[in-house]
Amino acid sequence: MELTSLYLPSESLSEMYRLSLVTLAVLVCSSSLVTGGKVLVFPVDGSHWINMKVIVEELHARGHEVTVLCPSDPWYIKGDSPFYKVININSPAGFDRDKFESYVIRTLDIRRQGASLWTRLSLVHDLMTQTYLMHKMVLQMVKVIFEDDKLMQSLHDANFDLVLTDPAFGGGVFLARRLGLPLVFNARWTIQGEGHEVIAPSPFSYVPITGSELSDKMTFIQRVKNILYYLFTCIQTWYVVRSNYKPFAHHHISSDVDYIELFQAADIWLMRNDFTFEFPRPTMPNVVYISGFQCKPSKPLPKDLEDFVQSSGEHGVIVMTMGTLVEKLPEDVTEDIAAAFAELPQKVIWRHKGKKPSTLGNNTLILDWLPQNDLLGHPKTRVFVAHGGTNGVQEAIYHGVPLVGLPLLFDQQDNFFRMASRGVAKVLDYGTVNKDIFLEALKEVLYEPSYMEKMKQLSSLHRDQPMKPLDQAMFWIEFVMRHKGAAHLRTESYKMSTIQYYSIDVIAFLLAVNLLVFACFSYVVKILCQKLCRSKVKKE
Amino acid sequence: MELTSLYLPSESLSEMYRLSLVTLAVLVCSSSLVTGGKVLVFPVDGSHWINMKVIVEELHARGHEVTVLCPSDPWYIKGDSPFYKVININSPAGFDRDKFESYVIRTLDIRRQGASLWTRLSLVHDLMTQTYLMHKMVLQMVKVIFEDDKLMQSLHDANFDLVLTDPAFGGGVFLARRLGLPLVFNARWTIQGEGHEVIAPSPFSYVPITGSELSDKMTFIQRVKNILYYLFTCIQTWYVVRSNYKPFAHHHISSDVDYIELFQAADIWLMRNDFTFEFPRPTMPNVVYISGFQCKPSKPLPKDLEDFVQSSGEHGVIVMTMGTLVEKLPEDVTEDIAAAFAELPQKVIWRHKGKKPSTLGNNTLILDWLPQNDLLGHPKTRVFVAHGGTNGVQEAIYHGVPLVGLPLLFDQQDNFFRMASRGVAKVLDYGTVNKDIFLEALKEVLYEPSYMEKMKQLSSLHRDQPMKPLDQAMFWIEFVMRHKGAAHLRTESYKMSTIQYYSIDVIAFLLAVNLLVFACFSYVVKILCQKLCRSKVKKE
Repeated sequence: MELTSLYLPSESLSEMYRLSLVTLAVLVCSSSLVTGGKVLVFPVDGSHWINMKVIVEELHARGHEVTVLCPSDPWYIKGDSPFYKVININSPAGFDRDKFESYVIRTLDIRRQGASLWTRLSLVHDLMTQTYLMHKMVLQMVKVIFEDDKLMQSLHDANFDLVLTDPAFGGGVFLARRLGLPLVFNARWTIQGEGHEVIAPSPFSYVPITGSELSDKMTFIQRVKNILYYLFTCIQTWYVVRSNYKPFAHHHISSDVDYIELFQAADIWLMRNDFTFEFPRPTMPNVVYISGFQCKPSKPLPKDLEDFVQSSGEHGVIVMTMGTLVEKLPEDVTEDIAAAFAELPQKVIWRHKGKKPSTLGNNTLILDWLPQNDLLGHPKTRVFVAHGGTNGVQEAIYHGVPLVGLPLLFDQQDNFFRMASRGVAKVLDYGTVNKDIFLEALKEVLYEPSYMEKMKQLSSLHRDQPMKPLDQAMFWIEFVMRHKGAAHLRTESYKMSTIQYYSIDVIAFLLAVNLLVFACFSYVVKILCQKLCRSKVKKE
Repeated sequence: MELTSLYLPSESLSEMYRLSLVTLAVLVCSSSLVTGGKVLVFPVDGSHWINMKVIVEELHARGHEVTVLCPSDPWYIKGDSPFYKVININSPAGFDRDKFESYVIRTLDIRRQGASLWTRLSLVHDLMTQTYLMHKMVLQMVKVIFEDDKLMQSLHDANFDLVLTDPAFGGGVFLARRLGLPLVFNARWTIQGEGHEVIAPSPFSYVPITGSELSDKMTFIQRVKNILYYLFTCIQTWYVVRSNYKPFAHHHISSDVDYIELFQAADIWLMRNDFTFEFPRPTMPNVVYISGFQCKPSKPLPKDLEDFVQSSGEHGVIVMTMGTLVEKLPEDVTEDIAAAFAELPQKVIWRHKGKKPSTLGNNTLILDWLPQNDLLGHPKTRVFVAHGGTNGVQEAIYHGVPLVGLPLLFDQQDNFFRMASRGVAKVLDYGTVNKDIFLEALKEVLYEPSYMEKMKQLSSLHRDQPMKPLDQAMFWIEFVMRHKGAAHLRTESYKMSTIQYYSIDVIAFLLAVNLLVFACFSYVVKILCQKLCRSKVKKE
């Protein structure tokens, strides 16, 4: 059959679904708009807010009322918005952005210039301390909320339908419990181990720990690495939970409440990935995969940018951005990158802040900001050079643009590993990248057709879903509103002890019974033998 | 917020989704109808065909061409249909329906009248033999297909897009492999263990084996039972696979092919349940839950039946059927049932073949056949008395009608256990049921409001899905057509050895390393101590 060929028809199919789902959304909204739902959002400030904001704005568009709890000195979160109401919390200790930024700069320097083992270890220690402080700060914010009787009363009186939170930090979990509200997560992954007890039982043999840069097909050594990585995350979790969340839960909720249990009791997990990004793995019925929920069809470019893009002719365009966290790359790197670009016949649009490289070619346009989504969706775009933030990678999948990766920090390397293992990205090492390496990688992705073909295939798989990811997110949030939770979709097995959960008691019991039966049988055989021997002796 | 109250609004929401999805379907069909897909169906004859037929007819309605492979002497499958083309296979040994029916009658007699342990064991043996013979018969049919070169050539030439099969028997699995086609399952559960290796890793502590009559919350003894039940299914699987499928795979596919692997390689599992029926459990991304896909809104009743129903006034109506497998219940049972019905103010519509009971009341209408779906969807229906076939139970959930259960055979008891554990059914023991017990159960479900309330809640949860179950089934079948499979959604972990899968080698390695480190450390400490002692002695 020739239902549809791979890419375009699936895209147009997807658009037809979209059309139909718009009708659907209108129909549903016409019902839910009557009174609208009320959502209390406990977000994670910083780049995580970029994702949460998309959901918040869509909730608003569907007639729900959104209230965002936000530190009094927010970072990415805007204090005034037509889409949501903000409650500022005067938390005593704010997040030290300068320290965080200095950590980022130090890390990049060390990756580039090398450093002693001691310095590298101190960097890990710094990261752990930063993380610890962030968790502490979030809990201090929750403490301020809990201790403000007037605020708590107003939150109770507001009759929220649910708490929506990013579980990277546990504040929203406590809030939902104290207010007795259903809990919806908007998560990419969590330090509580994501898949390994929290979501679904996930064998180490084929479910790689996020961040481990492993796939679902591992060699023996890789499987060893995966378990070691898991043990490391366990220590991290134990440290963070024990030092922060455990005492907080005991003090502010109840002395017999375990934080991990509160966490696992979430009604719905909106996971910011899917199986064009993640490797296939066990999951649970209350986990909804919404990768690419922030993606949308591209809009036309501004006239001057469109002219520039069109001037690339048959060679097409390369788009490059390094995200918002690292605004400036070191000069030696940007010089090399600019020089590499200059040798290509393609046109290049590069989001770059800082000094203009001296090696910049005529084909390269430097911009302070660029319409990333519209550029990625432009038919002339051939390659996306990116740092590997989840959003950028998922937008590349959505638009079917192969990647050249220059991962810098955190999960970026792991994100790119996923893409490279699917043959849709070439990944470079920030520590060693130079003009030649960069140029070679670009040429490979530009001129080896498999990159583009595989990315188009991946894109068509990603887009071919029964429902658009953002509509799915809305459906399940509204489901929780309608049914006051999603109890029938989530297991309560986390309430079991480890011994019960792994059936250790049952296996021990069955072994004991077996041993007993064997012992009795042996005893009977022995007695019979003895009697037989005696009667033989007597006869003799 | 008061988005919607529980039952009706959710139903109307669901209808709105439906409306929108019809638009969607039309849009999609307008594309897929152009050339249409080609589906090769290897069904399981008997009651399983009732489900498969729904999917086959819907595939036809969406413009796909369906070919059904069918024994030359079919049971439930009709040889001519406007919806599908039949290829009759002249398989040498047919299924002995008489033996099967005599097994059913013997089982029911024994449950009613009691029997010696020996007779009961012989019954288990009979069932095992019957099952064994069915598997053998299916494989003989596949053998005939494989050895018919002309047929095989025509199947190759037909360019099917996929094989759709019910994995209760493994014939379709072999066919898909030989034809090199993607594989879609339409499954309720399989003797290969359903969840315990085949789908997703499922801890015995909270995932009950289908048929065990256990829930997701078990006592110690129940957890022991669950593991014993699992071991029993393992033996059964081992016996059936080893004696039938293994030699067949080696002979007809390749000597190094394992049947279970072929089975696990299915692209999509359309599971005939969901989490209003099943307890929450781990699952995989390629498992789609389509419980209630056969359900549809009720149509108006024929005039005389509607008059009879309306005559029940405020008391409402009781509907009773015992399915198609057991057409006649023993006389003593039907006399008791009729007498119990006669004592109620409700009207009763009873699908009953055989002698009219002498105790029949004026309020009871006996019919040879009844429009089950239209009656269950009638607002006057108060209770559904059923045998517990999956279809009937799921229709009751769909229409929100509480149940009185009289399970007879197979998985019926287990299906009802699920309903009873949710408080929406009262279950009776066929072995001991009499007039008083039956009457009391009916009164309890009729007059204890919690049964109706909980069933309405369950129904509203079941209906509140992003997409109708049948549309979901179609979406994923068409997905497999569009992408020639669904490789990115299924794990290939089944290709690992048990030692690798459970990381036994890695754990042994890590323990060995630990031991070695410990031994080295001990040795060094020992040497140091000895040296220290010696120098002390010297000094002294």
